[in-house]
Amino acid sequence: MVNPIDPTSAAFLYAESRTQPMHVGGLQLFEKPEGAGRDYARQMYAAMSAPEEIAPLFLKRPHRSIGTAGQLVWVPDEHFDIEHHVRHSALPRPGRVRELLDLCSRLHSQRLAWERPLWEAHIIEGLRDGRVAMYTKTHHALVDGVSAMRLLASVLTTDPERRDMPAPWAARPASAKAQRTREAAESSLAQVPMSALRSAYGLTAEAAGLPSALVKTITRGLRNETSAVSLYAPRTMFNQSITGSRRFAAQDWPIERMRAIGQATGSTINDVVLAMCSGALRAYLIDHDALPDTGLVAMVPVGLNAKQAQVASADGGNAVGSVMVQLATDLDDPAARLVAIHRSMRDGKQALSSMTPTQILAMSAIGMAPSILTPMLRMQGLVRPPFNVIISNVPGPRSTQYLNGAKLVGTYPLSIPINGMALNITCTSYDGKMGFGLTGCRRTVPHLQRLLGHLDNELTALERAAGAR
Amino acid sequence: MVNPIDPTSAAFLYAESRTQPMHVGGLQLFEKPEGAGRDYARQMYAAMSAPEEIAPLFLKRPHRSIGTAGQLVWVPDEHFDIEHHVRHSALPRPGRVRELLDLCSRLHSQRLAWERPLWEAHIIEGLRDGRVAMYTKTHHALVDGVSAMRLLASVLTTDPERRDMPAPWAARPASAKAQRTREAAESSLAQVPMSALRSAYGLTAEAAGLPSALVKTITRGLRNETSAVSLYAPRTMFNQSITGSRRFAAQDWPIERMRAIGQATGSTINDVVLAMCSGALRAYLIDHDALPDTGLVAMVPVGLNAKQAQVASADGGNAVGSVMVQLATDLDDPAARLVAIHRSMRDGKQALSSMTPTQILAMSAIGMAPSILTPMLRMQGLVRPPFNVIISNVPGPRSTQYLNGAKLVGTYPLSIPINGMALNITCTSYDGKMGFGLTGCRRTVPHLQRLLGHLDNELTALERAAGAR
Repeated sequence: MVNPIDPTSAAFLYAESRTQPMHVGGLQLFEKPEGAGRDYARQMYAAMSAPEEIAPLFLKRPHRSIGTAGQLVWVPDEHFDIEHHVRHSALPRPGRVRELLDLCSRLHSQRLAWERPLWEAHIIEGLRDGRVAMYTKTHHALVDGVSAMRLLASVLTTDPERRDMPAPWAARPASAKAQRTREAAESSLAQVPMSALRSAYGLTAEAAGLPSALVKTITRGLRNETSAVSLYAPRTMFNQSITGSRRFAAQDWPIERMRAIGQATGSTINDVVLAMCSGALRAYLIDHDALPDTGLVAMVPVGLNAKQAQVASADGGNAVGSVMVQLATDLDDPAARLVAIHRSMRDGKQALSSMTPTQILAMSAIGMAPSILTPMLRMQGLVRPPFNVIISNVPGPRSTQYLNGAKLVGTYPLSIPINGMALNITCTSYDGKMGFGLTGCRRTVPHLQRLLGHLDNELTALERAAGAR
Repeated sequence: MVNPIDPTSAAFLYAESRTQPMHVGGLQLFEKPEGAGRDYARQMYAAMSAPEEIAPLFLKRPHRSIGTAGQLVWVPDEHFDIEHHVRHSALPRPGRVRELLDLCSRLHSQRLAWERPLWEAHIIEGLRDGRVAMYTKTHHALVDGVSAMRLLASVLTTDPERRDMPAPWAARPASAKAQRTREAAESSLAQVPMSALRSAYGLTAEAAGLPSALVKTITRGLRNETSAVSLYAPRTMFNQSITGSRRFAAQDWPIERMRAIGQATGSTINDVVLAMCSGALRAYLIDHDALPDTGLVAMVPVGLNAKQAQVASADGGNAVGSVMVQLATDLDDPAARLVAIHRSMRDGKQALSSMTPTQILAMSAIGMAPSILTPMLRMQGLVRPPFNVIISNVPGPRSTQYLNGAKLVGTYPLSIPINGMALNITCTSYDGKMGFGLTGCRRTVPHLQRLLGHLDNELTALERAAGAR
């Protein structure tokens, strides 16, 4: 059965190249259930690799041939082999988090072969603290980062005793609860903003015209008609061509610490996250003697409620727009940076709320498909980068989650660096902690892991400045 | 710098598909030097991944574009990143040979991406007996199995104290000994039989005409004009379309045991190897209720000395021809099978020695490029497989070898199953042991590892029959 690939997914496939793989990843850390033996990872792998049936999303692969008139289509994989997609791996000694991040960097550097369904999952043992990790990798043509998180969340439970949760890629049985979970997961998959907006506004026919709408919005931003798309960003070491090698670093900090800073300064947790990134980027660029005089600009996807955005969305919840945030990396004082970020974010959101659905649609496209955007900007003769770095903050579950009895103790997103945008910072909250996932081109962003130390320093500096410590 | 790809290499690239990756592999087992610490594998990895310079063979990748008029060419990889090619891996618990073979099966199933140089090496720790393994993978367009073995051997030494041996992919420094080693390695690389024969006989211009010569020889074989190409083979479960998943199994046995059988029965060690394979295949096919009435035919590459083959070869040594050997799997008695194999092998070699260089050239092509052959045979309207299984026996070093102090204790080849030829058996001798490497399509050859038990049983049965035990 041959199915057409929708234009958004196709764009992610066409944009893919050796230096720019288009998959998102997730790293989850689990504590074994009590009484689990040394072969627990093997059991977890066995359970994950033996679903009764695989969901269609995970069985299709892209295909292009003379028979399809050169168009990309989805075809089912006739030789589907779960052992290719679900794997059991181990860390070399000494099994620190460092070895885990090395393995994830390596796995995230490898393109998914189009000749098979575009996903992989690795159950990883060998952490010296006994935890078990899972790294998953899914092509952006199948899911975006938020949907991938939701899909994973749909197989977690707050009940540590439950043991019958399916693998994320399993076709779900029709029990009432599982069915609802399933439907929720499917609707979140359908909720990739562009698709959702397209169906909501009947814009499908306009899909081919999207790029021009997008560029129009950005060009307007250049002329400063809206501060949400203030595209005046300095050149930095992050805004260069990239290679296909990735470095991934991750760590989490208690949300309580960020909340305390926010409360003391009248800013949001998200403002504090951005201020941490700002301070860390500043310190990193100073280390490399590469801090520009002008402050860096971050592209920050933000949630808009349905009414505000005038957008119908599957769970009555949020649609996504983007704000260009002045990171104020040129300021020396952490408190002053936080104030500037708070103001820039507030202005941007206000501008966004006054935008038309088409503008929001275009902004969403920036968030979802920067790789598609970049070549277009070049065509428009823009020489400066529209922004310097993408910083996303994806909300995750607030309560402790379990996967068949294994307690989820950490979850970190791996994202997509693109040409001209060598560093991506994606955060996700879970169970009182904010997990930062930093994904960069290894060559363009050397010693990426040092940003973790800078983030930690900056959090402490903000606490001091806010009198929250 | 763009270099044309010679037709043989190009044929291996064109023949490659998802179900038919065209790389050869090698698995080496090392014992740590005395006093080596727990992080020895990491040190080995560090040494392997930091050569001062990489040999050009390992820096080029295939490329095809409008600029090359659609032709495949070699281009240097501008973004070469050794960390993509040399990797440090670990085995899940309990770290038995079984987990090692599982990992090798998985690694061998993955195609090498053309966008990078066509090789990988994995330093593998986590074997519970403390040994360290190395799995290497090289595209057949770069080297054939024999050359790959020689390349590896060129960085080994009989001196356990030596520590300055380079990685196989390092550009060698110009010390006299290293230079000789290097030249020997390069000449063996150049010695891919077809290329060697082409240059020796000035056949380069005829290269495009090779297939027709090849088919002519085979067609003659069909009419029984030479017993070296007796193509009457039964259909078996091995002679079907394959998938891209591989299973690898390996084990070694003392050559002394095979020699004793040979001496007692007037056969060669190679005859005994073939008899072991014959008995094992028979037992395996009986297990699957799939033993054909007619005996299986094996395609066996054989060495011919230069004079006999009338072929100049780089080291004055051997060129390679192929003999179709009747495996006599229809006979119940191990001793009778050995006698039949010995006779078939002898007849085939005699026939081969009477062949013209062009015929030998064609036969070599069968050995080196069965994947190219198969579609041609189909075009010729042949419905039966020309043979059932490929069994190669590649001589390796006879004395104990060391890699920077680590003792090589086992070496096993991984080869290329192709459509219609789902099982490949390649043996390699080393330090008094014969290592059997069985590479098969996992779906077409289920429970491949059971062949190891059958091989062991057959060796014992042959010893009993020969009175050698």
